[in-house]
Amino acid sequence: MNNIKTAAIIGGGVIGGGWAARLIENGIEVRVFDPAADTKAKFDAVLANADRAYASLTNAPRAAKAAVSWHASAAAAAEGSQLIIESVPERPDIKRVVYAEIETSAASDAIITSSTSGIMPSELQAEMVHPERLMVAHPFNPVYLLPLVELVAGNQTDTKYIEWGKTFFAGIGMHPLHCRVEIEGFLSDRLQEALWREALWLLHDKVATADEIDTAIAYGPGLRWAQMGTMQTFHLAGGEGGMRAMLAMFGPCLKWPWTKLMDVPELTDDFVNEVGGQCEQQAAGLSPRELERIRDDNLIAIQRALKGNDWGAGKTLARYEAQMMQAANDD
Amino acid sequence: MNNIKTAAIIGGGVIGGGWAARLIENGIEVRVFDPAADTKAKFDAVLANADRAYASLTNAPRAAKAAVSWHASAAAAAEGSQLIIESVPERPDIKRVVYAEIETSAASDAIITSSTSGIMPSELQAEMVHPERLMVAHPFNPVYLLPLVELVAGNQTDTKYIEWGKTFFAGIGMHPLHCRVEIEGFLSDRLQEALWREALWLLHDKVATADEIDTAIAYGPGLRWAQMGTMQTFHLAGGEGGMRAMLAMFGPCLKWPWTKLMDVPELTDDFVNEVGGQCEQQAAGLSPRELERIRDDNLIAIQRALKGNDWGAGKTLARYEAQMMQAANDD
Repeated sequence: MNNIKTAAIIGGGVIGGGWAARLIENGIEVRVFDPAADTKAKFDAVLANADRAYASLTNAPRAAKAAVSWHASAAAAAEGSQLIIESVPERPDIKRVVYAEIETSAASDAIITSSTSGIMPSELQAEMVHPERLMVAHPFNPVYLLPLVELVAGNQTDTKYIEWGKTFFAGIGMHPLHCRVEIEGFLSDRLQEALWREALWLLHDKVATADEIDTAIAYGPGLRWAQMGTMQTFHLAGGEGGMRAMLAMFGPCLKWPWTKLMDVPELTDDFVNEVGGQCEQQAAGLSPRELERIRDDNLIAIQRALKGNDWGAGKTLARYEAQMMQAANDD
Repeated sequence: MNNIKTAAIIGGGVIGGGWAARLIENGIEVRVFDPAADTKAKFDAVLANADRAYASLTNAPRAAKAAVSWHASAAAAAEGSQLIIESVPERPDIKRVVYAEIETSAASDAIITSSTSGIMPSELQAEMVHPERLMVAHPFNPVYLLPLVELVAGNQTDTKYIEWGKTFFAGIGMHPLHCRVEIEGFLSDRLQEALWREALWLLHDKVATADEIDTAIAYGPGLRWAQMGTMQTFHLAGGEGGMRAMLAMFGPCLKWPWTKLMDVPELTDDFVNEVGGQCEQQAAGLSPRELERIRDDNLIAIQRALKGNDWGAGKTLARYEAQMMQAANDD
């Protein structure tokens, strides 16, 4: 399991496409299955975005890109694959059907990872023949540029696969984070959801527009979060007293009604239209592809700028470049 | 009120020091008052950090730095100041006493801004002689490097001061965001608090350490938040369907118990020790000054990298540089 040459991608959406881009960039052949008729064009657009992004992300020599092939079923894609990445919709029933299909053709020691954003792996693996080789490997959009991947074991997962994942995902330029306790939403999405829920309330209550809410992040706290999380941010803001001083100063505010703790806005058609409409307005007429390119340019610029610095994703990029240069020299 | 030459800073902590650094960098003389005996050394350390940061933030010519003077009372510092920035502890009673002192000596048309993170300006201005000139101008640490400043009017504030603030703060390299509806916590801190509360629960429940929680941000979502907020992030993640697709896909998850909605962890001594201790461990023996320099280097690198790009703080920096070059040419 230490030398993956062929991987299957089940579900060719934004996440599946992003996984494929990262894998072929690192010389791993990809076998895709998606039941939807229109998937391939979108999938290819993700690959094109990724190819463009990698060309400017790194100065290191790039490996020869591996091939992508399309297959008629999950079983066909899984056949001969040492790693099978599931990126289908967030419904346990759909995912379980997919695992059953995969297990009809996959080698018994093929590793299966779910890209789920928050469903517990124990639930996903419950009906599998070989549940010990299923784990969550949760990436972040765009998968080809963001380094984080959360690794989560279910109660039947063999922990050797977590150890394998730490090495494998680091090898394709990622930063694996082992979520040691299995909880719904894992770590990153719980944090993201907390922010999103509050953002939706602010918009719902007409306190601010989508654009004002985003400005409140991107021009301030967001610049800190690109290099460090909430805990270290507040530890520094506390001056000499660090986090202890911050807890003394702002801890009581956590109990004030500063956020809508008790409830979530009802997603009525009107509200969805309001939120969707404001986000479309914010996009100022740019197409999804154009928006993605601006985002990618910024993500590349930030990671390059942080390269070799002491904190965060810049370290991951520096390590990955060193590894690519080593590989090129070894050839 | 359009040509501020002298400003008072009442409260010389991390925030007051950061304001002072930004003002003197832009040729505005600063008069400081702080009752604490040990403030000046920390204040000077912030100025030194800021001077070092500005030297690498921009290639544009820097203006001659204005002077800082220390005064024996809030009234003495406020005298002759066209702008008075209050950065004292987050207690309305303390702030009201400070405003009363300021009003004994300040010109009746001097502008008074509070740096409060979340107290309503209507509450702060309630007992003032000239409440119409008090507004909130809430900055973010480090004030000398982060562009965001939230402007909030109270029910007695003359709206002309909000308009003034939009121009003035942009003129010193910031990105003013007018929070149109007065609510506690304003926009940015509500969003930050939502994230912090969830982070504290994850740590409290021993799901993850401070460092793991921070990793879940800085290597993934944080890199997106440096250029765009939650709304645009998910609009892009939704692919062709945008935010509407995301609400359909993940909206129901908002109602799942993914976050501890109902409560906040009790800040017992044990828990504060646990959180504080983990944050200190995370800092790996570096002093607050050393940590601040790493943070500043990263904030500079990110803003320089985004300079001239289409979204976020890079735009603010590009505009500020153009303005500084214009000023140098005009001299």
